[in-house]
Amino acid sequence: MTLSGFNNLEKEEAGEMLSACCGSSNWSSFMMEKFPFKTEAELVSVADNTWYNECGEADWLEAFTHHPKIGDVKSLTEKFAGKEQAAVGTASKDIIEALANANTEYEKKFGFIFIVCATGKTASEMLRLLNDRLKNNREEELGIAMGEQHKISIIRFKKLLDESNWQALKVSQLTTHVLDTSLGKPGKDITIRLKQFSDGTWQTMAQGVTNADGRIADLLPPNRSVVPGNYKMVFETGNYFTANNIKGFYPIVEIDFTVFDDEHYHVPLLINPFGYSTYRGS
Amino acid sequence: MTLSGFNNLEKEEAGEMLSACCGSSNWSSFMMEKFPFKTEAELVSVADNTWYNECGEADWLEAFTHHPKIGDVKSLTEKFAGKEQAAVGTASKDIIEALANANTEYEKKFGFIFIVCATGKTASEMLRLLNDRLKNNREEELGIAMGEQHKISIIRFKKLLDESNWQALKVSQLTTHVLDTSLGKPGKDITIRLKQFSDGTWQTMAQGVTNADGRIADLLPPNRSVVPGNYKMVFETGNYFTANNIKGFYPIVEIDFTVFDDEHYHVPLLINPFGYSTYRGS
Amino acid sequence: MTLSGFNNLEKEEAGEMLSACCGSSNWSSFMMEKFPFKTEAELVSVADNTWYNECGEADWLEAFTHHPKIGDVKSLTEKFAGKEQAAVGTASKDIIEALANANTEYEKKFGFIFIVCATGKTASEMLRLLNDRLKNNREEELGIAMGEQHKISIIRFKKLLDESNWQALKVSQLTTHVLDTSLGKPGKDITIRLKQFSDGTWQTMAQGVTNADGRIADLLPPNRSVVPGNYKMVFETGNYFTANNIKGFYPIVEIDFTVFDDEHYHVPLLINPFGYSTYRGS
Amino acid sequence: MTLSGFNNLEKEEAGEMLSACCGSSNWSSFMMEKFPFKTEAELVSVADNTWYNECGEADWLEAFTHHPKIGDVKSLTEKFAGKEQAAVGTASKDIIEALANANTEYEKKFGFIFIVCATGKTASEMLRLLNDRLKNNREEELGIAMGEQHKISIIRFKKLLDESNWQALKVSQLTTHVLDTSLGKPGKDITIRLKQFSDGTWQTMAQGVTNADGRIADLLPPNRSVVPGNYKMVFETGNYFTANNIKGFYPIVEIDFTVFDDEHYHVPLLINPFGYSTYRGS
Repeated sequence: MTLSGFNNLEKEEAGEMLSACCGSSNWSSFMMEKFPFKTEAELVSVADNTWYNECGEADWLEAFTHHPKIGDVKSLTEKFAGKEQAAVGTASKDIIEALANANTEYEKKFGFIFIVCATGKTASEMLRLLNDRLKNNREEELGIAMGEQHKISIIRFKKLLDESNWQALKVSQLTTHVLDTSLGKPGKDITIRLKQFSDGTWQTMAQGVTNADGRIADLLPPNRSVVPGNYKMVFETGNYFTANNIKGFYPIVEIDFTVFDDEHYHVPLLINPFGYSTYRGS
Repeated sequence: MTLSGFNNLEKEEAGEMLSACCGSSNWSSFMMEKFPFKTEAELVSVADNTWYNECGEADWLEAFTHHPKIGDVKSLTEKFAGKEQAAVGTASKDIIEALANANTEYEKKFGFIFIVCATGKTASEMLRLLNDRLKNNREEELGIAMGEQHKISIIRFKKLLDESNWQALKVSQLTTHVLDTSLGKPGKDITIRLKQFSDGTWQTMAQGVTNADGRIADLLPPNRSVVPGNYKMVFETGNYFTANNIKGFYPIVEIDFTVFDDEHYHVPLLINPFGYSTYRGS
Repeated sequence: MTLSGFNNLEKEEAGEMLSACCGSSNWSSFMMEKFPFKTEAELVSVADNTWYNECGEADWLEAFTHHPKIGDVKSLTEKFAGKEQAAVGTASKDIIEALANANTEYEKKFGFIFIVCATGKTASEMLRLLNDRLKNNREEELGIAMGEQHKISIIRFKKLLDESNWQALKVSQLTTHVLDTSLGKPGKDITIRLKQFSDGTWQTMAQGVTNADGRIADLLPPNRSVVPGNYKMVFETGNYFTANNIKGFYPIVEIDFTVFDDEHYHVPLLINPFGYSTYRGS
Repeated sequence: MTLSGFNNLEKEEAGEMLSACCGSSNWSSFMMEKFPFKTEAELVSVADNTWYNECGEADWLEAFTHHPKIGDVKSLTEKFAGKEQAAVGTASKDIIEALANANTEYEKKFGFIFIVCATGKTASEMLRLLNDRLKNNREEELGIAMGEQHKISIIRFKKLLDESNWQALKVSQLTTHVLDTSLGKPGKDITIRLKQFSDGTWQTMAQGVTNADGRIADLLPPNRSVVPGNYKMVFETGNYFTANNIKGFYPIVEIDFTVFDDEHYHVPLLINPFGYSTYRGS
């Protein structure tokens, strides 16, 4: 469908399609007040503003309930055969069971199901992420989960408007890349937390696990700009060294940096057991 | 045209089309001995092997003569309005004149016209490159120019077989990226020479100028692998500092490295006035 | 005096000399239980163990009261003409007044006077340090101040036993060195906090300001080993950039590292506005 | 002896003492024209200027002949028991034989004996150095050997005037320090060549092997300043990796840098198998 095809739909039908992208009824109502949308960028921008600034906890939680719960082995196995989470498809039974257990634990701890934009993630990356996120507090998780929901909404926009050209959609404003300069290879399976200073304390606002190329493609949702200020990326290098049987000097690497504007910020980490570097990349 | 469309052409017509990609008659004859081609990759591979291993100086020089000579202001101006060298289109008169003069000087020094794969290069990058290459010896220039011709041939393949999917074509085996970590910006307009040890001396085998993102996209032709061994990238950092009114400690940065196999090698440079780093990237 | 000269003193006289090094009566009593001392190293080791492990808050506070209070302009001016704090001698009136005010504020906040091993520090480094330490909590300051007292005790040992050879005395187990690689010069006047994880939170255990060579000579007392575990050095790079009118990307640099044993750990920082490196030095 | 004691000697006796420091008759004659010397620094400065600027090849070769030839096993073994080359004392028979053979080869190749300031060098460092220097050409070796002679002369000055305070003598103007940041340890036994651009080519002007702390203490003679211009340090990292069974990306590391003035230049190398950094240190 093209954007103009979408714009020409009856309001009711268009609203239903938006609801299929994100299950918050307030969100789709607010969105429909702005319907039709001039450009794909406007659609994303309105969705962003509605979700982050006009919706609140109740709306976010409502959206979460509209995700098929993937809390048991059966649904997980089925789900992973589906399209959205294809990368998880080759997961072993062990990992699926561990995911099921962690999902249960997650819901018990936070009161809502684990929401993650699974696109491009392997099952073991997912499991790592789930276990990592279990360590956050509820406020952090609520913020992370609603960010994940927004990434999912945008992916669903792209599927809905599959005849649109989405190339102008900007990637995550903050990106990173880990290279292990002892091995000359990407640093993979490293947990990274993006934190912001909020209410007198550092809060995790997004997190991920580096992929085989040492990157996290979607730390933040596309086209989203964070508020200028100080942020921090925390890399769990100690776990990485341990997992690779390396004696390393750095249990954790924390990089504090300033976001001055809404440009893209690339914050790579060159790590080796007894030294590391970072710089603003491009 | 698709590859099968091309393969179904009469031999004579197919041969003419190849000749339009590279003007060496031996090259197109040798190529036609392998006609038809199973895949686009095979086409490129045969072209590569023919050009580098079966052809010689006479063939290379013949190909160079089939390029429209861009040695005078009139032809340069016209040429730059054309498709292949679109990026040069906005060149000022001064730059066009300087290019014309340098072209003349080049032909006088080396006995053949200046060959460069102009795609994506601005006129001032071209002028810088031309002046840099004037400093090479004839043997180096012959090698560089024939490499440029091969890049041009591949670009012409892509235009010829415009219905093919060229995504599997691998980028330059050796790439670099310069970042100025004092400014937090790419290091642009930096001349880089790729050298190999040959006949007891380091010979420049390819060279370029970093673009606005601090990169040289096409240091080597696509899908080409260099022989395993020791190579050297030489960055003219002194000129970069001077051009930016910076007092720098490094007149030049030389990075010697070993190519072990035909994988991709990314050799970035993080430069600041009194320090630099390099690493094997990904 | 030599060590054997000291050992041959009457107990009472020796005890008085120790009391002049550190004003805690328990400390000097405990020390005298071990009198005489076989070597200078043993003297320092016993002093260290007594001060850190056998003494407590009341003893530390008692020692602090035996320092001449340098809380007003008159005493500061006099004191700075003395031997121990010679480096402060050239301080301007403004700095002396600021020091006096900050001393008053410090005592009001923490309930004890500001203790610092002033040897080798300029008045402006002292003032910076005092203002930095005012930001700590009482528990942190108590720990820092008793560490400073111990450094002072050792300096007084060296003056007392001025015929001893103190070359075997090891410098601070943890050291750092800041170099600004944009300028090719040491990074001076940078506040550094050494933190340890204690009671579920990071506590500042020592802090200093880099000198003209970018170093802090005495972050920890000589011959003292910290408990193996994770530590953190925090560099106030944002203030450094601001003070030098540089737009920098890093408001703060935090380096987490692991102390495995009682060897020396050198943790340098190579900083420039948009990049930094660290490594284990030697 | 103090400097004034030396200055009060009869001219003949003083001249003989200088001759014992350096065996060139012109050098000692020229030196005696400036006798007596106001300060130790003046003595060194006059010696430097005489040796580098007033003497020539014939004088340098004459001085070399006054060294006890250490070209056979017997003299090597004896020599190494002496004071000047104490560090070689623990050399195994194998190393002594290898040294003897290399000495013979050296003299055959260059026509003069191998001159090296052995102070502080182990026998295996000496052997490495000798084998490395065998690869130089005669012009390079003549320059290096006369530099070594000058270092020896200064060491002999210090022994002669053993009551002088030599602390103001400045160390090598150019220094380096190699750290292996994969291991968190100094990079030892790494050959380093210091080159200058001379007569259109890079000439080795000094060379050494890093010690256990990753340093070369005496790359240049004390108090000597090189001419401002471009220099290059070449680190034989490939050999280092091979010797340590590490697959490394860098067969050699070349650091080109500019000497602007007669200040001290510290040019460290942080190396790991797939990455390295350098900076101007302090």
